[in-house]
Amino acid sequence: MAKNKQNMIDLNIKNVLSDKIGLRNGIERRVLNDHLKKYGPLVGEIFKLKDKPGYSFLKLPDNHGGVEKIKKFANKQKKMKWESIVVLGIGGSALGGIAVRDALLGPYHYLKKKTHLFFLDNIDPDDVSELFSSIKFEKTLFIVISKSGGTVEPIALYNIAKKIFVRKKIKNYQKHFIFITDPKKGILRSIGKKEKITMFDVPPDVGGRFSVLSEVGLVPAALAGIDINALLKGAKKMREIIRESKPLVNPALILAVLQYLLDKKKNKIMTVMMPYSNCLFRFSDWYRQLLAESIGKNKNSGPTPINALGATDQHSQLQLYNEGPENKWFIFLHVLKHKNDLELRAGLPKEIGFLNNKKLSELIDAAYIGTSEALAKNGRPNITVLVPTINAEVLGGLFTLFEFQVALLGLLYKVDAFNQPGVEESKIITKKILLETP
Amino acid sequence: MAKNKQNMIDLNIKNVLSDKIGLRNGIERRVLNDHLKKYGPLVGEIFKLKDKPGYSFLKLPDNHGGVEKIKKFANKQKKMKWESIVVLGIGGSALGGIAVRDALLGPYHYLKKKTHLFFLDNIDPDDVSELFSSIKFEKTLFIVISKSGGTVEPIALYNIAKKIFVRKKIKNYQKHFIFITDPKKGILRSIGKKEKITMFDVPPDVGGRFSVLSEVGLVPAALAGIDINALLKGAKKMREIIRESKPLVNPALILAVLQYLLDKKKNKIMTVMMPYSNCLFRFSDWYRQLLAESIGKNKNSGPTPINALGATDQHSQLQLYNEGPENKWFIFLHVLKHKNDLELRAGLPKEIGFLNNKKLSELIDAAYIGTSEALAKNGRPNITVLVPTINAEVLGGLFTLFEFQVALLGLLYKVDAFNQPGVEESKIITKKILLETP
Repeated sequence: MAKNKQNMIDLNIKNVLSDKIGLRNGIERRVLNDHLKKYGPLVGEIFKLKDKPGYSFLKLPDNHGGVEKIKKFANKQKKMKWESIVVLGIGGSALGGIAVRDALLGPYHYLKKKTHLFFLDNIDPDDVSELFSSIKFEKTLFIVISKSGGTVEPIALYNIAKKIFVRKKIKNYQKHFIFITDPKKGILRSIGKKEKITMFDVPPDVGGRFSVLSEVGLVPAALAGIDINALLKGAKKMREIIRESKPLVNPALILAVLQYLLDKKKNKIMTVMMPYSNCLFRFSDWYRQLLAESIGKNKNSGPTPINALGATDQHSQLQLYNEGPENKWFIFLHVLKHKNDLELRAGLPKEIGFLNNKKLSELIDAAYIGTSEALAKNGRPNITVLVPTINAEVLGGLFTLFEFQVALLGLLYKVDAFNQPGVEESKIITKKILLETP
Repeated sequence: MAKNKQNMIDLNIKNVLSDKIGLRNGIERRVLNDHLKKYGPLVGEIFKLKDKPGYSFLKLPDNHGGVEKIKKFANKQKKMKWESIVVLGIGGSALGGIAVRDALLGPYHYLKKKTHLFFLDNIDPDDVSELFSSIKFEKTLFIVISKSGGTVEPIALYNIAKKIFVRKKIKNYQKHFIFITDPKKGILRSIGKKEKITMFDVPPDVGGRFSVLSEVGLVPAALAGIDINALLKGAKKMREIIRESKPLVNPALILAVLQYLLDKKKNKIMTVMMPYSNCLFRFSDWYRQLLAESIGKNKNSGPTPINALGATDQHSQLQLYNEGPENKWFIFLHVLKHKNDLELRAGLPKEIGFLNNKKLSELIDAAYIGTSEALAKNGRPNITVLVPTINAEVLGGLFTLFEFQVALLGLLYKVDAFNQPGVEESKIITKKILLETP
């Protein structure tokens, strides 16, 4: 276990060890250490692979030129005073950006009179119609993201948005679009060239679900006023921690080996990520894609990620988690220092006298401890990622930590963590249906 | 399978049958029919139990007196011109209301200049601080909901909200609160009496997760301008369909028997509910509590509900669903008629020529068919709930359909569907921690 230093992401794994939760569901410290030593060399191997397709996500934090270009562009866009920035993207083109937005702007940023950042990551006619009829197109910037340049959903939405600009007779509609796509290939790239639309490149060797720290996540973040240098600084720091930590205290290796052992040896086939923070809920949704799409490759390889929200889901899922089948393990995200806090009054009725003068942070911390300890008592393995506070630097570190974990899991499960052949069949049938309807 | 009638909720179960998806994962039609006949009498039994605790959710649609009182109250509140209505409740006190709001007001209702309906269902200090600093307390009505009257989270939030009213020197702050709680017992009831706050009763025999069609869901809905009579009308209609349908075509029985058989005979231990509609996403979250907390009772009883969103999660979870372990089944919610639609232009690049002049509804429908058929090809059982359109009446029917399914599942799994003993331990530890900190 890594040492608990101030202002650093850290792990607490005591509730996964057999001396705390019993041998049926827990991992013996000795077995864990043996596996950490055995798999320790994989960490170095991944760093050696950093120029190979997929693994090159590791180089994203070094993309200084790209960052300067993004910041310059975002700075110039300020004078446009956009009221809405709407990202048209789906899957890996949206989930990282949403995680960044919710963590750093908060789930209620729409209520404040700033620029609003939307992610339209579906083609639901009701949803799209409602958003398009609620925003002022004159004051809207659309960011169309498709790594391959051929993803149907964002291209369809771009097409409809363009049609609305034309119908509304808004001049220079091209200025209302940015494309983020493959530097050379794809339909989006050729439309962009023809229409003279500002374009940013997605590094072609980086997979969509590993692209949050590339232009895919950074451009929307920068336009929304987020400190993207801090995001990358946190990512670099975490990369160095992973590179330099010995196996027994390496956080990415510990996360990977625990996932693997709990799945394979203890039948914990579901991984519940449960932040005790609304701001981090969509981070768990980003991780849900990362784990599912990277490792869900065959009948023997595919832990199922599940999102839950503390304390909310104590009143929804905890019954099942505590007493249902023993087929899950839990990753809590525990925020050590909140940005804001509120305090209850004194003089409460005696039945709830224990709430007198308590802060909300004390309440949610107690709820987290209550839940993690109750689960441990019931033999349900759980670990905690200690999140010092929620800021751009910490978030950059969290992305890197879990990306590296999943890259390691590819080696442990012996699957290609960077492809997704299992989504093709659905696309083929969908296209066939659309071709056959007049 | 129930007959497909216009404007009626219906099921399509062909992708679960062995003649379509194979015997390893599919259910033989004969086996299904035998089980439907065998368990058919349970439907009548549940109707007989409607006066017993828990089962009395079945009587909620008949609560005419309550409805008139709610409507009268909502009508009177109109002159207050509330800008924000904030529900303070958690679990069953929030999830039904959120499902109603998102389905009928849409996920973007905040962007329109009407009354905003918030559900504050967590005690995250950052989240609460942000909402409380974004709304005008002078223009805010708080609805505090706790069935037992002793739930810590909403009481804590009430307490903080009251403190802010006092600090802001807003007169008659009592007028800014409504309590919905047990008619006699509990802390909230006694605070309400003392403070002379308007109170509505939660029928004491109805469980929180079955309470959406009681005052718990109806009061916030009515205040937000939703037609609560239509909600109840749809519930009654569905109740009659369930009461009168023969076993082989009874939708609630089919849903229950399939869940049971797929879990017990085919090891589909996870139930993925995947609406192809953003408006219905939080309906699946409501169902997630209903299934998990009602049936997750011991090591042999506890299907794990999972929420997914179509088409979005095709780009996140479909790889795992199609090629990963064969441990899931899928319930799609397919909306037949959307309220709005948008059309693409003609003359698109030839690679995407199949999108020329297509409507978004055609795109999302094709995506749903592509996914359900790809899953079937891969031997992954899935069914579809055909949702004629999204309105209050249909939504009332959907709630009733799945509540009845879960009541049936209690009998099939031989567990008490209406208790939740597994959440106590966490509460005890939490309270102990709070008592021990000064």
